[in-house]
Amino acid sequence: MEALKAGTTIDRLVVAKGLSDPSSQRIIIEAKSRGVKIFFRDKDVLERESVTKKHQGFLAEITDYKYADFEAMIGKIVESGQSNSMVLLLDGIEDPHNLGSIMRVAECMGVDGMVIPRHRSVSVNETVIKVSAGASQHMQVAKVTNLNDAIGTLKDNGYFVYALETNGQDITKTRFDGKIAMVIGGEGKGVHALTKKLCDTTISIPMYGKLNSLNASVACGIALQVAKSGMGK
Amino acid sequence: MEALKAGTTIDRLVVAKGLSDPSSQRIIIEAKSRGVKIFFRDKDVLERESVTKKHQGFLAEITDYKYADFEAMIGKIVESGQSNSMVLLLDGIEDPHNLGSIMRVAECMGVDGMVIPRHRSVSVNETVIKVSAGASQHMQVAKVTNLNDAIGTLKDNGYFVYALETNGQDITKTRFDGKIAMVIGGEGKGVHALTKKLCDTTISIPMYGKLNSLNASVACGIALQVAKSGMGK
Repeated sequence: MEALKAGTTIDRLVVAKGLSDPSSQRIIIEAKSRGVKIFFRDKDVLERESVTKKHQGFLAEITDYKYADFEAMIGKIVESGQSNSMVLLLDGIEDPHNLGSIMRVAECMGVDGMVIPRHRSVSVNETVIKVSAGASQHMQVAKVTNLNDAIGTLKDNGYFVYALETNGQDITKTRFDGKIAMVIGGEGKGVHALTKKLCDTTISIPMYGKLNSLNASVACGIALQVAKSGMGK
Repeated sequence: MEALKAGTTIDRLVVAKGLSDPSSQRIIIEAKSRGVKIFFRDKDVLERESVTKKHQGFLAEITDYKYADFEAMIGKIVESGQSNSMVLLLDGIEDPHNLGSIMRVAECMGVDGMVIPRHRSVSVNETVIKVSAGASQHMQVAKVTNLNDAIGTLKDNGYFVYALETNGQDITKTRFDGKIAMVIGGEGKGVHALTKKLCDTTISIPMYGKLNSLNASVACGIALQVAKSGMGK
């Protein structure tokens, strides 16, 4: 429970079958709400895999990734005096391949930092790090309890916040400049209604086909490239 | 061998262990050169899995996807009289996830058709179709023996051919108009030297990070979006 509350990246949680006490149930509920993959196994399996043998019915496989502190990250950008900045907020990306791929394109497009919510989002786990193809070493990611509060902080620090969604203003007709933050929605669900409301405006990628549904990392890449290439013009 | 020569999409080829006759060897070499995944299994396995029991040591899992005829595809676009057109050529994409993802973004960006080489490229298999998220039903893909010949045909039909590569002209400073074809290189290898030479010009996505390496489908999405949004302006 302490590891979960501290925001440790748990790639895999092995739980002994048949645990029914309230505190064990609380751990399972908490882990589920954070999108941790849970595997129920016989107690024998935990006995065998645990090094200390003091597992209390739980074994967690964790990834050692150092998250940035959100306030410190934004503070540093503002203090640097840079006139242009791009920050990326991910509203519930659940697929580690997408997060890794987004991290990779964000690094290439000069994003200053990424923000993910503590709940209902994949963490920076081993798959994310692998798919990011090295970008995880250069891209700072902050985990926040509330994405909406983070948007407030960004606005207070002079950021203009865009939600990338359908039915918004054409990105190719949008003038991007100064400090901008972009909110990308989760796979298939998009940006949450309340979060979208808090954004300054909604922008969309013009589509020309019959399906018109882009993968999150491709959409993110296109939007970041358009924003970045428009800056300072 | 006939299925291979006809360009049938073989997802998986199961070969009986211990086949050493020249004609079997030729099939294996041919399958390998086409990037087919080969699994060597005991003869018993083939006996069990074969319906007709006339397997001769080979079992192929195939995907029923109808490829477009390249010449007919281009001919139709030219005859339609449309002033703008985008055709995408993939120079050796080997990962089915990348091909599916490229198909998806190509569909969204209004690409008229895709071209893949018969050799050293993944075919439109089940994984590609799944990842394309429906785009395979709308996007026509032609398989050609020689990508360089296809570039020649495109040029003869009024297409301006771009190679998307490093160290080329900045795509954001390139004027895209009329009939264009874009050649995307394989994962990590890029566009072949000879193919690149045949292209009219090389274009690049400006990068702002430390790694500056994009996933093929993300790079493709960015380039297509920039090209498409510049057309007719």
